[in-house]
Amino acid sequence: MIQKVAIVGGTHGNELLGVYLVKKWQEFPELLHRESLECVALISNPAAVAINQRYVDRDLNRCFATNDLANQNLTSYEDQRAKEIAMQLGPKEQPLADVILDLHTTTSNMGISLLPSSKHPFNLRLAAYLHSLYPDIKICFGLQHGQNAPMLRSLSPLGYTIEVGPIAQGVLNADLFQQTEQLVHEILNYVDATNQGNPLSEAAVVTVYQAIANVDYPRDAAGELRGMVHPQLQFQDYEPLHPGQPMFLTFTGEEILYAGEAVVYPVFINEAAYYEKQIAIVLTEKQQIDLEKE
Amino acid sequence: MIQKVAIVGGTHGNELLGVYLVKKWQEFPELLHRESLECVALISNPAAVAINQRYVDRDLNRCFATNDLANQNLTSYEDQRAKEIAMQLGPKEQPLADVILDLHTTTSNMGISLLPSSKHPFNLRLAAYLHSLYPDIKICFGLQHGQNAPMLRSLSPLGYTIEVGPIAQGVLNADLFQQTEQLVHEILNYVDATNQGNPLSEAAVVTVYQAIANVDYPRDAAGELRGMVHPQLQFQDYEPLHPGQPMFLTFTGEEILYAGEAVVYPVFINEAAYYEKQIAIVLTEKQQIDLEKE
Repeated sequence: MIQKVAIVGGTHGNELLGVYLVKKWQEFPELLHRESLECVALISNPAAVAINQRYVDRDLNRCFATNDLANQNLTSYEDQRAKEIAMQLGPKEQPLADVILDLHTTTSNMGISLLPSSKHPFNLRLAAYLHSLYPDIKICFGLQHGQNAPMLRSLSPLGYTIEVGPIAQGVLNADLFQQTEQLVHEILNYVDATNQGNPLSEAAVVTVYQAIANVDYPRDAAGELRGMVHPQLQFQDYEPLHPGQPMFLTFTGEEILYAGEAVVYPVFINEAAYYEKQIAIVLTEKQQIDLEKE
Repeated sequence: MIQKVAIVGGTHGNELLGVYLVKKWQEFPELLHRESLECVALISNPAAVAINQRYVDRDLNRCFATNDLANQNLTSYEDQRAKEIAMQLGPKEQPLADVILDLHTTTSNMGISLLPSSKHPFNLRLAAYLHSLYPDIKICFGLQHGQNAPMLRSLSPLGYTIEVGPIAQGVLNADLFQQTEQLVHEILNYVDATNQGNPLSEAAVVTVYQAIANVDYPRDAAGELRGMVHPQLQFQDYEPLHPGQPMFLTFTGEEILYAGEAVVYPVFINEAAYYEKQIAIVLTEKQQIDLEKE
């Protein structure tokens, strides 16, 4: 039985879509009402929202590792917020919020992507159901998944980062605002129906993307950028990248090719916030998961 | 005779395209070499570039009003930089840099737009020439044009802001990087040919967009956003907006229509940096200018 769902926005203060969706739901909580559920909507990083920056001291969505939550020496603004949010929604071993939806945006062309905190059967069934409603939705597992991950979603095994893009930092996009709003309502409907013993119809197989490696931009010895995502790869999130295809174009015009041996499916291509994390592209494998066998 | 051209990047520290083009030209100054010209490439706001923010204290590209440059009480980082840059490239009445190209990006779908500092005949002829090379390039005059404007370009009557988009803040786009690089080279070629008495062929008429008004987002009494750019208007920069067509969509789903009486051509639609300036859209009039009559 899922008793409580938390909908979180503003984990990154300049990702406005989640901020304004949460503010809307805080103003009109009746929109979140479902018979079998309690829903709470919260802004997780209000100080970052106030200054329209990703974070104040450090990335809040990397502050939820179990060790860090227990470490009283970590006292940055975001470390404090993480501890407060873990009190409100956690702890990881028995979270007060059974389901967590953490709303993000990306400058990558990832459409609407669901990044579950684990491959828990509930997550896979939900993913399959959402995919049947919205064929374009993508299900992606990060390099750091499971509840040891430092993301806010990892407070619950049924936690999800929802990435929506492409959207520039600091702007709203009305189309994607409405699509994300609708998606959240469908998730609440699904949880409510499941609680009431009326599981909604679902597919038997779900396609997912499993992150396998990060790739940095070309840089010089001092760490300075030497190039950009190649025009042929820009905005091609979830499309196959074959060995020998171009990944980067240096400022002086040389192509850098993908040197791997297997076809991969890049995501988070040219995400603004990942430049400082030394991530230009996250490579994933495409997998089919048979729900009957899970 | 145009003796000196200044190419400026990083006036806004999170608009990376100009930053990395300028760094490339600083590393390979021979690329800017033209027989009749001296070219200088400079990063105008290095402290903002270092923190990947638009500015440190205030928008550098609003610090070049004549009164502000003369006001010794204005001592913010950007006010100091403006005075230093004015020493290097100005003064307005007789600038050391005859031509200034200030490279910006926008989250709006403005393609490559040239915003000249004035309707000086040289600017119109250059615009017409570039338009003959690149039919998609747009020529736009801001609400604040002329040398009284507070933009960096206003240091010279032959100053231009070059806006390139859509690009999110904090990212590079390889296609637009290369297009902008090529455009700058064509401008240098044009200036060099003109200096040498071989003006390049040009059209007799040039289409320009003249800003006439700013429109803010719908807000509540406290100044909080109540809505977003309407999906039908998003990314439609330079397309005609007719009376009665939708401009905004509130978070609760109401449409707000354009109530003017004339067809206008919106630009800077949903530019990230303009939320804080209370500008959602800049309305322009489309004009044809006959160069024979100028």
